[in-house]
Amino acid sequence: MKVYELHPHEGFASLVRAERPSPPVGPTDVRVRVRATSLNFRDLVVAKNAHERAADARANVPLSDGAGEVVEVGSRVERWKRGDRVAASFFPTWVSGELDDRHHAAALGGSVDGMLAEEVVLDQSAWVRVPEGWSYEQAATLPCAGVTAWNALFEAARVRPGDTVLVQGTGGVSVFALQLAKAAGARVIATSSSEKKREVARRLGADHVLDYTADPEWGAAAKRWTGGRGVDVVVEVGGPGTFDQSSTALRYGGTMSLLGVLTGTKGAVDTHRVFHRHLRVAGVYVGSVSMFEDLVRALEASKVAPVVDRTFGFDDARAAYEHLASASHVGKVVVTL
Amino acid sequence: MKVYELHPHEGFASLVRAERPSPPVGPTDVRVRVRATSLNFRDLVVAKNAHERAADARANVPLSDGAGEVVEVGSRVERWKRGDRVAASFFPTWVSGELDDRHHAAALGGSVDGMLAEEVVLDQSAWVRVPEGWSYEQAATLPCAGVTAWNALFEAARVRPGDTVLVQGTGGVSVFALQLAKAAGARVIATSSSEKKREVARRLGADHVLDYTADPEWGAAAKRWTGGRGVDVVVEVGGPGTFDQSSTALRYGGTMSLLGVLTGTKGAVDTHRVFHRHLRVAGVYVGSVSMFEDLVRALEASKVAPVVDRTFGFDDARAAYEHLASASHVGKVVVTL
Amino acid sequence: MKVYELHPHEGFASLVRAERPSPPVGPTDVRVRVRATSLNFRDLVVAKNAHERAADARANVPLSDGAGEVVEVGSRVERWKRGDRVAASFFPTWVSGELDDRHHAAALGGSVDGMLAEEVVLDQSAWVRVPEGWSYEQAATLPCAGVTAWNALFEAARVRPGDTVLVQGTGGVSVFALQLAKAAGARVIATSSSEKKREVARRLGADHVLDYTADPEWGAAAKRWTGGRGVDVVVEVGGPGTFDQSSTALRYGGTMSLLGVLTGTKGAVDTHRVFHRHLRVAGVYVGSVSMFEDLVRALEASKVAPVVDRTFGFDDARAAYEHLASASHVGKVVVTL
Amino acid sequence: MKVYELHPHEGFASLVRAERPSPPVGPTDVRVRVRATSLNFRDLVVAKNAHERAADARANVPLSDGAGEVVEVGSRVERWKRGDRVAASFFPTWVSGELDDRHHAAALGGSVDGMLAEEVVLDQSAWVRVPEGWSYEQAATLPCAGVTAWNALFEAARVRPGDTVLVQGTGGVSVFALQLAKAAGARVIATSSSEKKREVARRLGADHVLDYTADPEWGAAAKRWTGGRGVDVVVEVGGPGTFDQSSTALRYGGTMSLLGVLTGTKGAVDTHRVFHRHLRVAGVYVGSVSMFEDLVRALEASKVAPVVDRTFGFDDARAAYEHLASASHVGKVVVTL
Repeated sequence: MKVYELHPHEGFASLVRAERPSPPVGPTDVRVRVRATSLNFRDLVVAKNAHERAADARANVPLSDGAGEVVEVGSRVERWKRGDRVAASFFPTWVSGELDDRHHAAALGGSVDGMLAEEVVLDQSAWVRVPEGWSYEQAATLPCAGVTAWNALFEAARVRPGDTVLVQGTGGVSVFALQLAKAAGARVIATSSSEKKREVARRLGADHVLDYTADPEWGAAAKRWTGGRGVDVVVEVGGPGTFDQSSTALRYGGTMSLLGVLTGTKGAVDTHRVFHRHLRVAGVYVGSVSMFEDLVRALEASKVAPVVDRTFGFDDARAAYEHLASASHVGKVVVTL
Repeated sequence: MKVYELHPHEGFASLVRAERPSPPVGPTDVRVRVRATSLNFRDLVVAKNAHERAADARANVPLSDGAGEVVEVGSRVERWKRGDRVAASFFPTWVSGELDDRHHAAALGGSVDGMLAEEVVLDQSAWVRVPEGWSYEQAATLPCAGVTAWNALFEAARVRPGDTVLVQGTGGVSVFALQLAKAAGARVIATSSSEKKREVARRLGADHVLDYTADPEWGAAAKRWTGGRGVDVVVEVGGPGTFDQSSTALRYGGTMSLLGVLTGTKGAVDTHRVFHRHLRVAGVYVGSVSMFEDLVRALEASKVAPVVDRTFGFDDARAAYEHLASASHVGKVVVTL
Repeated sequence: MKVYELHPHEGFASLVRAERPSPPVGPTDVRVRVRATSLNFRDLVVAKNAHERAADARANVPLSDGAGEVVEVGSRVERWKRGDRVAASFFPTWVSGELDDRHHAAALGGSVDGMLAEEVVLDQSAWVRVPEGWSYEQAATLPCAGVTAWNALFEAARVRPGDTVLVQGTGGVSVFALQLAKAAGARVIATSSSEKKREVARRLGADHVLDYTADPEWGAAAKRWTGGRGVDVVVEVGGPGTFDQSSTALRYGGTMSLLGVLTGTKGAVDTHRVFHRHLRVAGVYVGSVSMFEDLVRALEASKVAPVVDRTFGFDDARAAYEHLASASHVGKVVVTL
Repeated sequence: MKVYELHPHEGFASLVRAERPSPPVGPTDVRVRVRATSLNFRDLVVAKNAHERAADARANVPLSDGAGEVVEVGSRVERWKRGDRVAASFFPTWVSGELDDRHHAAALGGSVDGMLAEEVVLDQSAWVRVPEGWSYEQAATLPCAGVTAWNALFEAARVRPGDTVLVQGTGGVSVFALQLAKAAGARVIATSSSEKKREVARRLGADHVLDYTADPEWGAAAKRWTGGRGVDVVVEVGGPGTFDQSSTALRYGGTMSLLGVLTGTKGAVDTHRVFHRHLRVAGVYVGSVSMFEDLVRALEASKVAPVVDRTFGFDDARAAYEHLASASHVGKVVVTL
């Protein structure tokens, strides 16, 4: 089968096409013919860091996100049958309960082979039915960005009708969070430095938009927009560089769902405000199979359609990476097989 | 000022028009000119039980639900000013935290004077701003039925997008629950023995309707409709007579928000199923001022409009009671002043 | 290996000694040499109902609870090694998350072979390390009664220091609940009709005891003992026959952890009080592997020692059943192998 | 009555003895004869910042913590009577629900008069019964440090038997947290750079102690001590300077109760680890009247006795401040009246 592998080259030259035998199917395994994959910020980091790999290290298949159809099931598999339309969970072994080291180590497209391959074999418990009526391209957007947004709003936080949710920018997670928050009856404030992207956010349902370049004190502006009460939930994709504006925006007891590193992994933050205003900062790292299933149910009950920015063919996978790295996208970048 | 009082007469003859001086305003009190009130099932019980009162007992003003405008504030009141549009909380002293005996004893229209009066004076913390753009007739529907529905879905339970909620009939609480559940992205199953009412439920957004007379095993039917998984939340207004069908309908770990006595206050229920399927039965008795404020925020963020079945003038208050008692209504019965 | 099987005979004659080949070990399986088992009320029901089985039905091995040492592990097992001391989870497939039909069907000693056998083979995820320093006899008391008590206090409810917990009688679950509640800093009220058992409850740490025969209104008595506030949690092992006394005992917002059928599976209960006092009734059916692991951690941090009423040899298994059925026990009845 | 006031002088010279008339008692007020007060880190900051006050600003009475007996109640007060032994809540208006700006502004000993006065008048809802059998000196230690520790363990987090709690140093909050965690059946790790203080921590029940000076990587050491799983809750009194060690110590999904500023109010922290390990950071700012009442119940059910480091007379209040500022204390510093 055809795959991409990560080799120790600089930049996205690390992505190298290759041929591999399709893996065997054990008694509880399911083989899926991948039809579409999608890219996340993490995938850029993984590809760029590939040059640091030892020359003799095994070359991994990249990408965590993919969807396709079941083509073979193991002898003891009862949940799936040929033809079922499924997507893989970012953490294939994290079914429910709490994340742990073992689940971490098994994340797809990290130190374990990912989805940019014609066929993928995983245990039956790693797969999730895709939403009825969704194409593979659409379904491939869900495993990382969709599940992260779900976790951020409905597990780490508890968004209810009438709440106000603040999302940053128009990347994959933020767009899903905007759409899911609206589906839950919340109000949404979206920030972006681009008028074009703010317009997209409005079109997707944002009740208010903020230009964080024009107004560096956008946290206070968001709070003012709520009548001084503060927002209930911030989906924090920036990290340390945006933390203080986010905590300024939040109401007493509000939740910051912290999941991003766009401004770095470590930096100065105001810890005093966290305790002074009884804030909750909740780390969100994608989510479990069970959360993915809940997300699918929510999508099927709503009219949410994923925002696919652009679709690339398998041969153009490097171009897909380049496109995501340019940060000009709104929503998700997809590669089909 | 003009009021109705409850006197020890049989049936709704217990409702007697009277004149009273308007009560004085203390330093933290707010006087409101009531413009509209609404009736709940509890009000029928209170009025019918009035004949049991001692002949020399003080005659109370009935009704828990009313809305109007602020006409006078006490010297230390900072939250409200003349002209503010407000509704009273069913439990005027229950601001937040847990219900207690003291809050119970202060419930409006029970052993304490209620809202069927030209003017009502209560502490500033008992009043809640009505949703922007709502008329007094609309706002008067909220204190008991609206807050109960909110509590049932978002405090006692935790409805999320994609959940399935089952509501029974088309009384005040059930209609609000239907509308709020839809606003939260849930699916709704509504039961009714009347095709006309089922049609109303569909028009209000119900995804599925069940005729409980035609199918006494409607609990199993509801479960089937969810693909065998079971519903996430039942808003149980029936009590013991519907309990077992409701528990049959629920998924493992699902919540029955138990709030009604339409089939009685005590009766045989299957306790085995409750533990066998890990169900949660949560008693819901209206709610706090804080929940009422959350409800108002939710309504303002949604397009929900209250379903007013019929509006009566002050002189026709008894007719309003008769109408509610006939159980032919869909939504709320209102009396204006 | 030697086992007991359930055959279609009346009473405990249904328990029949037999010889079976030890089951094979698959790649993710673990074989355990069982050293001790314990009996629960459910086991009496299962044994007595055995006479209803079809004559040609496969004879099952009874009992859900057992502990022993690992004697063989499958090729892909990483969590366990020979010599590890473990107990099986009542629901071997319920690792975390919510209970479901599949987990139910796999419960040990029901329609699936249980622990009253020399050797038992289960998937690696079904086993839990036993508390350090505990004998096999002691550890065998945990899977059903210990985990149920844990779930009742710390999952279905949320006992904190200073709370009051009411336990009924001195059966296995109630004794563990008493001990765990004390370990958590709570006060405990224990009910029993036997002065001898009340004395045992006192010795185990009960702060107050009630004789439910002498005072049929023991719910009100329990509430009075708390100064009128009501108890925070009731561990309800009785079912419908004790439900109303339990709900009388509870504080506003208190939790009834409903788990027993000692007075039946269906009966008249006061549903009005449930909603009038904002009670939470939470079904508890043993618990997951993850809860079992939490319990073990709690036991190791405490000085709790399980109360073993009496230990029988393998040959006397029927006598153990008779003894439990006599209801004269305090704590757990054990059978060693 | 005699009081201390804060005047715009340098250092603790800001504390000035004065005479004031006792304030009047309104209909819902309660007058208390203060018998003992206690000092917190915040009081040092308030006193040192007093020199920045405008010369014509009203001089405030310092200290948030005090206990005494009721000497007069307003005409509508039903909860209290003369002779009742009570302590004031740090936030007198925060009864339950969420903290807000209004509650903040009313905190005792900040911009509002505090407890270092012979008599204090507050609304009836601001007072809490002190634990039975406790002296006024002991009770005066509770309002800030005791309630903060309670909130940190049982509201912001959810400590259960078998959990591991890490506390930093031996200040007032940390000592209460140590004692309450032990009362809840948890294991406790305490850090201190002083062998003497570590010995005190051991005597109070700490299961393990760490010297953070000798081992700057004490977060990893704490995690190792739990067998690699990580601690369940950290009571974070340090702030940014200790944040990263604390997050290193925590298990997946563990809670950092963030409440202190001993190392500053803003600083570089690792936000990546927060999301990578699904941590919860929960701001804790003392707590509500309702939490204080829960704490009292917990203390009465336990054998916890507050650790009073040293008691000063009213005339020596400045010396009490100096003593606390020297950081040589273990537990609480008290001033009696």
